[in-house]
Amino acid sequence: MRAVVFDNELKLVNDCEKPVPKQNEALIKVKLIGICNTDYEITKGYMGYKGILGHEFVGVVEEINSEDKSLLNKRVVGEINLGCGECEWCKKGLSRHCPNRQTLGIWNKDGCFAEYVTLPLNNLLEVPENVSDEEAVFTEPLAAALEILEQLHIQPIQKVLVLGDGKLGLLTSLALSASGLDVVLVGKHQNKLDIANAQGVKTLLLNDLEIKKEWDVVVEATGSLSGFETSLSLTKPRGVLVLKSTIAASKEFNFSSIVVDEITVLGSRCGQFKPALKYLADKKVDVKPLITAVFDFEDSLKAFECNKSKESVKVLVRG
Amino acid sequence: MRAVVFDNELKLVNDCEKPVPKQNEALIKVKLIGICNTDYEITKGYMGYKGILGHEFVGVVEEINSEDKSLLNKRVVGEINLGCGECEWCKKGLSRHCPNRQTLGIWNKDGCFAEYVTLPLNNLLEVPENVSDEEAVFTEPLAAALEILEQLHIQPIQKVLVLGDGKLGLLTSLALSASGLDVVLVGKHQNKLDIANAQGVKTLLLNDLEIKKEWDVVVEATGSLSGFETSLSLTKPRGVLVLKSTIAASKEFNFSSIVVDEITVLGSRCGQFKPALKYLADKKVDVKPLITAVFDFEDSLKAFECNKSKESVKVLVRG
Repeated sequence: MRAVVFDNELKLVNDCEKPVPKQNEALIKVKLIGICNTDYEITKGYMGYKGILGHEFVGVVEEINSEDKSLLNKRVVGEINLGCGECEWCKKGLSRHCPNRQTLGIWNKDGCFAEYVTLPLNNLLEVPENVSDEEAVFTEPLAAALEILEQLHIQPIQKVLVLGDGKLGLLTSLALSASGLDVVLVGKHQNKLDIANAQGVKTLLLNDLEIKKEWDVVVEATGSLSGFETSLSLTKPRGVLVLKSTIAASKEFNFSSIVVDEITVLGSRCGQFKPALKYLADKKVDVKPLITAVFDFEDSLKAFECNKSKESVKVLVRG
Repeated sequence: MRAVVFDNELKLVNDCEKPVPKQNEALIKVKLIGICNTDYEITKGYMGYKGILGHEFVGVVEEINSEDKSLLNKRVVGEINLGCGECEWCKKGLSRHCPNRQTLGIWNKDGCFAEYVTLPLNNLLEVPENVSDEEAVFTEPLAAALEILEQLHIQPIQKVLVLGDGKLGLLTSLALSASGLDVVLVGKHQNKLDIANAQGVKTLLLNDLEIKKEWDVVVEATGSLSGFETSLSLTKPRGVLVLKSTIAASKEFNFSSIVVDEITVLGSRCGQFKPALKYLADKKVDVKPLITAVFDFEDSLKAFECNKSKESVKVLVRG
């Protein structure tokens, strides 16, 4: 089968072996794939991953290695962490923190940037009929945005600022706003801010933002050290700075305001698919305006190029 | 009056002006002073502070500029943050986060390393009779340790590790252990660990510690970047890393495990005096074994030298 593989370089391979579902796994024919910035980071060496890329998809179950065939021929999305099933984390339903987990297209498990992908039945959720493929493919990043609400109780009275108008910042501002919170999205790109603004999110260009410690919750979604520093200078004493993207400080960094202002820095990563699918089915968030382009599979490398552009938001590829 | 002043250099000054209590302030004759590492940091430039040092003391009220004379001639300790009294923080009883606060011996307010100090009556608490001066002088740092319990709900079943066996680490391990928690103190100095161990805290030399992400709560009390990094490699996914001391990263620092493991980094600083005095009065924590030496005031500079030694814990100076 064909697949997009990273192996020191990114390439489109035509003779990848079709995966075989293990016990209690399904074989899924991939219909649509989303490119995430993590995919791009992997091509720069993140996690040292080599193999088939991709962890955002919607597809149709073609084969099931289990007696339970209930998902056969169903349209599904799939949670990306494969836990061991035995440890305290898996038993608590938190296989995304299982120390022995595999992660689709990121760690020890071939991803969905291919004709076929396999996943445990437990990872799969059927997509409601009223959710299109173009919407369903956003389930994973929307779940990551909603993860904030699983981790943190934000009161309706509190002031929330999302810093960064990339895919994650946009989705986060839309998800938090859809949950009734008072959200301001701050970024550098008017065209991206407009997407959120059209759905009721207040927006502001970074240059127009007054840097003042007055926000109860600041979500850092720029992925840059300067974004982290700006977030710290916006968070109220005793406020919460949610760190959504992995950052490495390449220069001197002073943690003292975290202590002096008693800031809570909350790391936040993958979320559960069920609430994300519900937001999509209930049309609480319209993800379609985030789609910059949809490429055919044979143009996957072009899709990766397109994803690099600062103007792009979400780039999709047909399976 | 005599005082210890930092003004580019640390000096003992004999002709400082005796302070005059403002409206609703008291004049306090200082009986005993504690040296904190923040004092030492100030002599290296922290906060750019110049003036009389010191924020840990016990003293006797000699004069009150108010109709309310109830504290006259009483033995008192004093909270170190002087809020404006008007802002949202002060109104919530959180003057320690007032953006216009002064901080005793740290920011815009002469400290207690002197014969006399003034403080608002609202900052003062009478010391119970059964608490000696040597115990009462620990109220401020003990309050800082107990601040963790104001900010964070730690469940009795959770595993708590305190990293660093300096003053703050010792007091924190004693305070958390006295509150019924399962605490292990990890440090590099057997003589210091023994102080906590004698009061029922489990202790471990850093070299004997297995570096494993298995602690629900890790309190970083080393003040060093390597201590912060070690703390991150000890905190369980979704666990809490309490940052008690200000740190500056002088080299590359990677925040990604905060995100991947969804760690909460909780900055924690000054605490309320009332619970700390109660712990002392109830003899829940015995602070006396932490006293390394007590100097006379004229030997204050020697006391600062003594505080620098790695072997020292708390150094006191008689007022």
